[in-house]
Amino acid sequence: MASIKDILIEMKNLSELMVDLAYSAVLFNSKDAAKEVLKLENKVNSLNYEIKKQSLVAARSVEDAEKLTALLEIAEAAESIANAAKDLADIVIKGIKPHPVFKMVMEEAEELIISVTVEKESELSDKSLGELVLANRTGMIVIAIRRDETWIYGPDKHTVIREGDALIAKGTEVGSELLKKLANSEIDFDEISDIVDEEGQSQS
Amino acid sequence: MASIKDILIEMKNLSELMVDLAYSAVLFNSKDAAKEVLKLENKVNSLNYEIKKQSLVAARSVEDAEKLTALLEIAEAAESIANAAKDLADIVIKGIKPHPVFKMVMEEAEELIISVTVEKESELSDKSLGELVLANRTGMIVIAIRRDETWIYGPDKHTVIREGDALIAKGTEVGSELLKKLANSEIDFDEISDIVDEEGQSQS
Repeated sequence: MASIKDILIEMKNLSELMVDLAYSAVLFNSKDAAKEVLKLENKVNSLNYEIKKQSLVAARSVEDAEKLTALLEIAEAAESIANAAKDLADIVIKGIKPHPVFKMVMEEAEELIISVTVEKESELSDKSLGELVLANRTGMIVIAIRRDETWIYGPDKHTVIREGDALIAKGTEVGSELLKKLANSEIDFDEISDIVDEEGQSQS
Repeated sequence: MASIKDILIEMKNLSELMVDLAYSAVLFNSKDAAKEVLKLENKVNSLNYEIKKQSLVAARSVEDAEKLTALLEIAEAAESIANAAKDLADIVIKGIKPHPVFKMVMEEAEELIISVTVEKESELSDKSLGELVLANRTGMIVIAIRRDETWIYGPDKHTVIREGDALIAKGTEVGSELLKKLANSEIDFDEISDIVDEEGQSQS
């Protein structure tokens, strides 16, 4: 049986992944991604139920109960976030075509979501996300991978990128350009710091 | 009058900032940050009202109306996310002490939130976030800055970091270590790529 701590970690991670996935589902009009959000929402509901059960068992005193209440409220908030993500995903499931304005919104928001395909010669292929340390090198977080007809949602450091994978990633504008070029094998990792340094200087 | 597009961009940005701020308010037990979340929630509500008004004015045909409905649902979802963030912040406002488990949850989640103080010799001080390109160099996004008794929420590329600032930032574990060392002036930017390269190799 997972501990209250582990359940809450999973709820936080899942709720945040769901928001990213839901926005990308709308952006790329992907029913697969939207369905995954619905699946995850069920999971978050079960986790919230589980954490309530365990809190009742764990409370031994009024003081305990007060502290546990805060945890339950945090779990409740994570579920609310998950619900809002589900509402977003439902738009895609219902087959409503998003307004062209939405694409513009997603392209001008602070955090962009992009999809890039990993080319044969790219430095990204045949390496795990742990080896690539992409978030720290480029500022981009991979939220899902489309491989042929299958999807990998919420990949972890052990997930190995392959040639032909479509990476759905979120991050800054500069990071998006870097990731596109890495995936197209236009640049390799050694060139990144020079490009980022230039970007910093152009801002000064 | 802001366009529907601009309102939706602001709603998306604000709702995401609010989730980060709310989690950091709980983590650092900061009523100031929690109050800011409440203030932003009011703003998101007004924006949602504004977007409804403008959509009614903009709809010229049934087809228009159908497309605009999708935008309204996205705005509604952004408001739901904002509401969930407000629920989190309310826990802090009510003065409920969070369970010690929550600190552990935040320290083991996929995206960490940290607070670091910028020391005198740090390469971060007296540079704007645009010049620093922190997200791309370290994978860390600054969500708020505490300067003496004031706060800067959702800083942008023009925001200049000063000695003594406490940066509230989110990102990976590796990124958190990098940012701490940069703020303490234990390392400078030139050393980052070597550290990240080592991290990648240790994973292979």
